Amino acid sequence: MRLEVVNTGTELLLGKVVNTHAAYFGQELFKLGLRVQRQTTIPDGEEIRTVLAEAFPRCDVILITGGLGPTSDDITREVVAEMLGRPLHLDEAVLATIREMFRVRKLRQNLLNDRQAMVPEGAVVLENPHGTAPGLYLPADPEQGSPHLFLLPGPPRELKPMFADLVFPRLTSLLGEAANVPSWRNFRIYGVGESSLATTLEPLLADLPELEIGYCARLGEVDLRLIGAPRSIEEASVVVRREFPKDIVVESETSIEEVIVTLLSQRGETVATAESCTGGLIASTITDVSGSSAVFHRGYVTYANEAKTALLGVPVEMLAVHGAVSDEVVRAMAEGCLERSGADHALAVSGIAGPTGGSPEKPVGTVHVAVASRGMETFSKRYLYPVDRISFKQRVTRLVLDLLRRRLQGIGIE
Amino acid sequence: MRLEVVNTGTELLLGKVVNTHAAYFGQELFKLGLRVQRQTTIPDGEEIRTVLAEAFPRCDVILITGGLGPTSDDITREVVAEMLGRPLHLDEAVLATIREMFRVRKLRQNLLNDRQAMVPEGAVVLENPHGTAPGLYLPADPEQGSPHLFLLPGPPRELKPMFADLVFPRLTSLLGEAANVPSWRNFRIYGVGESSLATTLEPLLADLPELEIGYCARLGEVDLRLIGAPRSIEEASVVVRREFPKDIVVESETSIEEVIVTLLSQRGETVATAESCTGGLIASTITDVSGSSAVFHRGYVTYANEAKTALLGVPVEMLAVHGAVSDEVVRAMAEGCLERSGADHALAVSGIAGPTGGSPEKPVGTVHVAVASRGMETFSKRYLYPVDRISFKQRVTRLVLDLLRRRLQGIGIE
Repeated sequence: MRLEVVNTGTELLLGKVVNTHAAYFGQELFKLGLRVQRQTTIPDGEEIRTVLAEAFPRCDVILITGGLGPTSDDITREVVAEMLGRPLHLDEAVLATIREMFRVRKLRQNLLNDRQAMVPEGAVVLENPHGTAPGLYLPADPEQGSPHLFLLPGPPRELKPMFADLVFPRLTSLLGEAANVPSWRNFRIYGVGESSLATTLEPLLADLPELEIGYCARLGEVDLRLIGAPRSIEEASVVVRREFPKDIVVESETSIEEVIVTLLSQRGETVATAESCTGGLIASTITDVSGSSAVFHRGYVTYANEAKTALLGVPVEMLAVHGAVSDEVVRAMAEGCLERSGADHALAVSGIAGPTGGSPEKPVGTVHVAVASRGMETFSKRYLYPVDRISFKQRVTRLVLDLLRRRLQGIGIE
Repeated sequence: MRLEVVNTGTELLLGKVVNTHAAYFGQELFKLGLRVQRQTTIPDGEEIRTVLAEAFPRCDVILITGGLGPTSDDITREVVAEMLGRPLHLDEAVLATIREMFRVRKLRQNLLNDRQAMVPEGAVVLENPHGTAPGLYLPADPEQGSPHLFLLPGPPRELKPMFADLVFPRLTSLLGEAANVPSWRNFRIYGVGESSLATTLEPLLADLPELEIGYCARLGEVDLRLIGAPRSIEEASVVVRREFPKDIVVESETSIEEVIVTLLSQRGETVATAESCTGGLIASTITDVSGSSAVFHRGYVTYANEAKTALLGVPVEMLAVHGAVSDEVVRAMAEGCLERSGADHALAVSGIAGPTGGSPEKPVGTVHVAVASRGMETFSKRYLYPVDRISFKQRVTRLVLDLLRRRLQGIGIE
């Protein structure tokens, strides 16, 4: 079953609003084994006619969002009715619902909104409890050469409930026997790049039938997705686990910070942070997780040298001799943090986020990180991530969270 | 000039990643008076061939993202070379750059990455300082019926600098005389909602000719954009400034954190942070600004009560009597932070980010904030933002940065 999505909305193309519909549909349809084959965004107005005429012959289903509103550039309803040769009629039930909604919300009804009660012949009205414009479902019409059409409202808070309650079940029954919910497994991997993964795995997995391998890399994190025949996924998973036993954070899409919070919770342990170049992002990332208060009690953002001394006890002479971006200082930060916070683990980072402040010996992107834990030797190492300032902060944050993950899982981090 | 955008990436259609490129291009091209006429997302793989074949005849320019990576599903480069009948050759300069990047980052070079050094005949290489895959520009070729093609990397941190530095200037010169750069002005507004702005401003601006008013609201921040005739924009700006004198953060798209860092730098003053529910996000946001080290020296993340006492001197009894989420505690946090940090200003927040931890008196979304400054009375207030945990943290961060902005600009924050 070939399915496409058409989003109408000048605001999407002007960049006023990020199009989140496409990702939402992708996630929901995947549950049915359906994939969006193409997603097209067009401005409000006449372009909908061209795009639908092109898409009709190649599609079984088209989901169309937007263009159902009350203003003059909202013409999806009218264009579809015309293309299918189905006259519009005023639906009294829809009109009554719209008027009631205006009454309840104490808004002034106006004639523009009445237009939203016009329904093409043979269309099924999809109720919209969150807005005035109902959705419309037009079953496939072989005579007109049209596929199944779902006309849906643009605002996400109207679209999502309508899709879940009224569109998803219809797609399920349209699929009937054809429903083929795919098997898949996601490996979230840290410490290995996308191309190294591919170089190692692709020759080993090449002979497995009906197996698709996808990669998605994001600043230190790679998702490796296996999709296809369940047996091939199982066999491939064995290979992935064998080749990258230390680098698989989780076999799902759970975030590294959730993994850390879960691991610490299970052990009844806590972590504290001592941040220079990340400026609080490590602490903020940990506390993005609901329930993190059980494992994270405090963090120090020691951006200036005197704060490293005052809050973490880093000796003034050490800062003078080695500089703030050094192994010595980051170890002293981690150990001072461990001691003063009373936590079981401490993470420390000091680096040069840029764009200024680099030198030949310590270029922009240099970072020293340390992990200190009660009763264990402190780990520290220098890394280089010559990327923009914001990416650098995220990259370093993910790095140290992964170092802690390795330590908590008893994997050597040296 | 008709311009379209084609985004390739299975992860976009599976909903793993939200497509932010479309909005980015929309915003940038607007500055040239260009509008994206259509944006299409397709999976990795062969579909690029069909989509380009359809788009060539109707376009003057196509921006293509993704499919330049090292793995087997990245085929944009090869498909375009084939469609234009231009053989690929190994570009030694590109290869050397890729190898140098691997050397500097101490990564293992592999043959897959070498494929990224293949360049179609007649293509202009667009350097990519943030990744291994360079972009490519193929000028329009009337013989092949192809428009100007820009092949750009998928990751936003690679794409955006390349677009700004190498694509935007080329589009400007392609436009030449045809450039019809619209006049516009952006007001970044805090403390007033989109609908209040519209209700106040639209009747006052209704009679100005050739004026388009746009709004874009994001978690506490509203961009009000005036587009159209320069004279109408000037007249409308006078009205906006008159009606919202305290709420305009800046007449541009500068972030609130940049505004804060600039204001503090000009005064030679510093700010410190004492965060509970935001967990370090305020500090991290301030330190997103290059140059923030001059005005931000330290921050305290006091997530647990005992950290509030140990690091900020909040009395144990006060926490017991009033609870951590209270006016008393947040004032004590701000004043303790001011005193212990030696900063000129201190920001403190304590609240219930949720989803758990709420009560009838202090529901999820409750937050107390305080601003303490040397020689001034401490400001504190309770707010309610019943949104999801991550949005709550961002909303509160923007709120306190705006409160500091008002204090620094001598605007009453009471």
